[in-house]
Amino acid sequence: MSLDSVSSLRVGIAGLGTVGATVARHLLDGAVSNVVVTRVSARDASKDRGFDMQNIAFSADPLKLATADDVDLVVELMGGQDGAALDLVRAALKAGKPVVTANKALVAAHANELSQLSANTGGAVVPLAYEAAVAGGIPVIKTLRQGLAGNQLQQIAGILNGTCNYILTRMDEAGLSFEAALQEAQEKGFAEADPELDVSGVDAAQKLSILSALAFDLRPDVSAMAVEGVERITEQDISFARQFDCVIRLIGVSRQADGKVYQKVTPMLVRKGGALAEVSNELNGLLFTSQPLGKLFLQGAGAGGGATASAVLADIADLARGDGQALFDRATADMTASASHQAPESEYYLRVGLADKPGSMAKATQILAENGVSIEEVVQRASNDGDGFLPVVFITHEVDESSLDNALKALQNEKNICNGVLSLPIFAD
Amino acid sequence: MSLDSVSSLRVGIAGLGTVGATVARHLLDGAVSNVVVTRVSARDASKDRGFDMQNIAFSADPLKLATADDVDLVVELMGGQDGAALDLVRAALKAGKPVVTANKALVAAHANELSQLSANTGGAVVPLAYEAAVAGGIPVIKTLRQGLAGNQLQQIAGILNGTCNYILTRMDEAGLSFEAALQEAQEKGFAEADPELDVSGVDAAQKLSILSALAFDLRPDVSAMAVEGVERITEQDISFARQFDCVIRLIGVSRQADGKVYQKVTPMLVRKGGALAEVSNELNGLLFTSQPLGKLFLQGAGAGGGATASAVLADIADLARGDGQALFDRATADMTASASHQAPESEYYLRVGLADKPGSMAKATQILAENGVSIEEVVQRASNDGDGFLPVVFITHEVDESSLDNALKALQNEKNICNGVLSLPIFAD
Repeated sequence: MSLDSVSSLRVGIAGLGTVGATVARHLLDGAVSNVVVTRVSARDASKDRGFDMQNIAFSADPLKLATADDVDLVVELMGGQDGAALDLVRAALKAGKPVVTANKALVAAHANELSQLSANTGGAVVPLAYEAAVAGGIPVIKTLRQGLAGNQLQQIAGILNGTCNYILTRMDEAGLSFEAALQEAQEKGFAEADPELDVSGVDAAQKLSILSALAFDLRPDVSAMAVEGVERITEQDISFARQFDCVIRLIGVSRQADGKVYQKVTPMLVRKGGALAEVSNELNGLLFTSQPLGKLFLQGAGAGGGATASAVLADIADLARGDGQALFDRATADMTASASHQAPESEYYLRVGLADKPGSMAKATQILAENGVSIEEVVQRASNDGDGFLPVVFITHEVDESSLDNALKALQNEKNICNGVLSLPIFAD
Repeated sequence: MSLDSVSSLRVGIAGLGTVGATVARHLLDGAVSNVVVTRVSARDASKDRGFDMQNIAFSADPLKLATADDVDLVVELMGGQDGAALDLVRAALKAGKPVVTANKALVAAHANELSQLSANTGGAVVPLAYEAAVAGGIPVIKTLRQGLAGNQLQQIAGILNGTCNYILTRMDEAGLSFEAALQEAQEKGFAEADPELDVSGVDAAQKLSILSALAFDLRPDVSAMAVEGVERITEQDISFARQFDCVIRLIGVSRQADGKVYQKVTPMLVRKGGALAEVSNELNGLLFTSQPLGKLFLQGAGAGGGATASAVLADIADLARGDGQALFDRATADMTASASHQAPESEYYLRVGLADKPGSMAKATQILAENGVSIEEVVQRASNDGDGFLPVVFITHEVDESSLDNALKALQNEKNICNGVLSLPIFAD
């Protein structure tokens, strides 16, 4: 509650790419009261970044920010899961200096060490703020920690990767193939040259693991999470989904039920009209379910210089106001281990390559029925890929995951009638 | 940043209706760490409210909470713009006790006095938190103050009244008349027995005035705000709007441009697909535009026991963590006075009652043209009300407010061709 209005908070920024330079410009323009930029570190000292470097010290070595006497708060915007970014954050926390970072890969991968350093260095909390690490400019960390404080979280469902969402939207709205949509995303700056981390779902999983830690006290561990990317989604799936009045979205779901937390990143069918179905193009969106509030939906820019800078500035403002918190409420050693749990019962979209010959459909539906998978709707398209197999889509009634898995295994064992299955849960909000 | 984990924050709750009882129950269940409920005040001491009163002191007089030694934080949930609620909040702040309230009418009407008391009582800030006063469970105050800290706000556009939104949604989706939709809202508990404050737009205006104070440093003054309610919206308007692929929503807009802040509460046409158009039934939704973030959209329950309790709990958690703020960043005496400014240029929906005789349309369009109002689309319905006038709808190109006002005055002066005009801005997000 107390704010020392005499001495300003002296900020050191490591990394002056688009985000870093935007943050510096806004701070120099007085965007946050009682904050001054005293030192920066970047690859190139001389580059013009649209702000006056005259009163700002420059360090070629970012590590210097952790020890420099003129820096109270370290802002890490270099990126990278390890290397210089990790060295800097680690050193700053050890020196008792608060850190603001936008680096989700680093936070997710080193949660154990960083939670310990930030929860207790020299007997005190050293704040580590990372609003920008999840969903860019949407204040999702603050919403979980402050806006929903006092609530019991039940579910988080989020569109956490703008690249995938752009691709899926363009496949739907412009009829593009996955490859064409990806290329367009790259041309527009919504996808990296190497899109692997995005399209594989790993980037979304890193973000979801951070949200699950805050909401459900779950130790971040991406390797323990079921993660399916968008690479297997075809134009055919998009078009089938439309037929069921749905769109396909890559969704990270984390849900607590019966004392267990289930979490997964996967493409899902979302019924049009639902909040997440309306999240288009490169936007991110999150739907929280909690008691006593009920549902809360947030949507905004999940990446880009302005959005990321916004979240970094908000974290700096918190710290300037004296409101800083450890990475999580406790060291991850004291949190619940991530574990693989059965998915909650769900309806599913099943696209099955079914042999174009008499008896295939009868056999397939028999296998599904024998395994307890009950069918709500079937759509069969006349066209086939010329290999003697037709794409057939089944919409199932609610079914538990193990029954579904058994059914799909049995189906895929019948190689003469089935040449592959794609199963996508149908999102129920 | 420091939290005294030894001594708990002792909370006194005045008002044990649905919200107060829900807050008490959650606090007693340990929803917020380091908080205990020590004292309550309500009309009836003996009523069973679903929690154990055994260790909680009871005061028949709510004012006692301001002075009681066992209360550190006063939670005002009695409601009412003046009277006991005002007495209590005033006394608590004067006694240096932080206050949490859900009372938008009180905050809006007494902003001057309360901002002064909370910004400086005995030389210190006495926190006054009111997350629940605007948009219920949506953490909109925290988003403005923390999530968007460091941003330059440009526009806030919000659906801030669930009653009006329910009525407009049901008129559209179920084809109900205004009266039937209002009655349904009352039966479902989404509207008060006396709905005047809601349907007139005043409730939304009170909330908007609070948001404008936070975002644009504008002194709250509902009487200086242009406010139009939903009473004049007919089934015909809803159906015309649908024809233009729009819905009608009651929107509070506050917008800063050229150093001036324009604010208004009015029904507007919103194009389907836009975030605010998707806010249905009793929900609230807000669209913030700011730099460097861009757009941020929030949607959730704007009223009801659970939603309001959620926001109150979040405020209590802030205070328990040691993060409390004055009502506004400064006393309202030092803020900019609300003033009436020209609306930004906008497209408009004009429903004109036009005489069903030759030359009416020519005359009407001539008057519009003479006043600089250029028409994008016209729709004329065959049916008339039997009074010799036909409803005709004009969609205008962007036009400034004074040109439009002049045109509408001139049109309404031609009593032989025009028997009334309804003009609604078309929302541009």
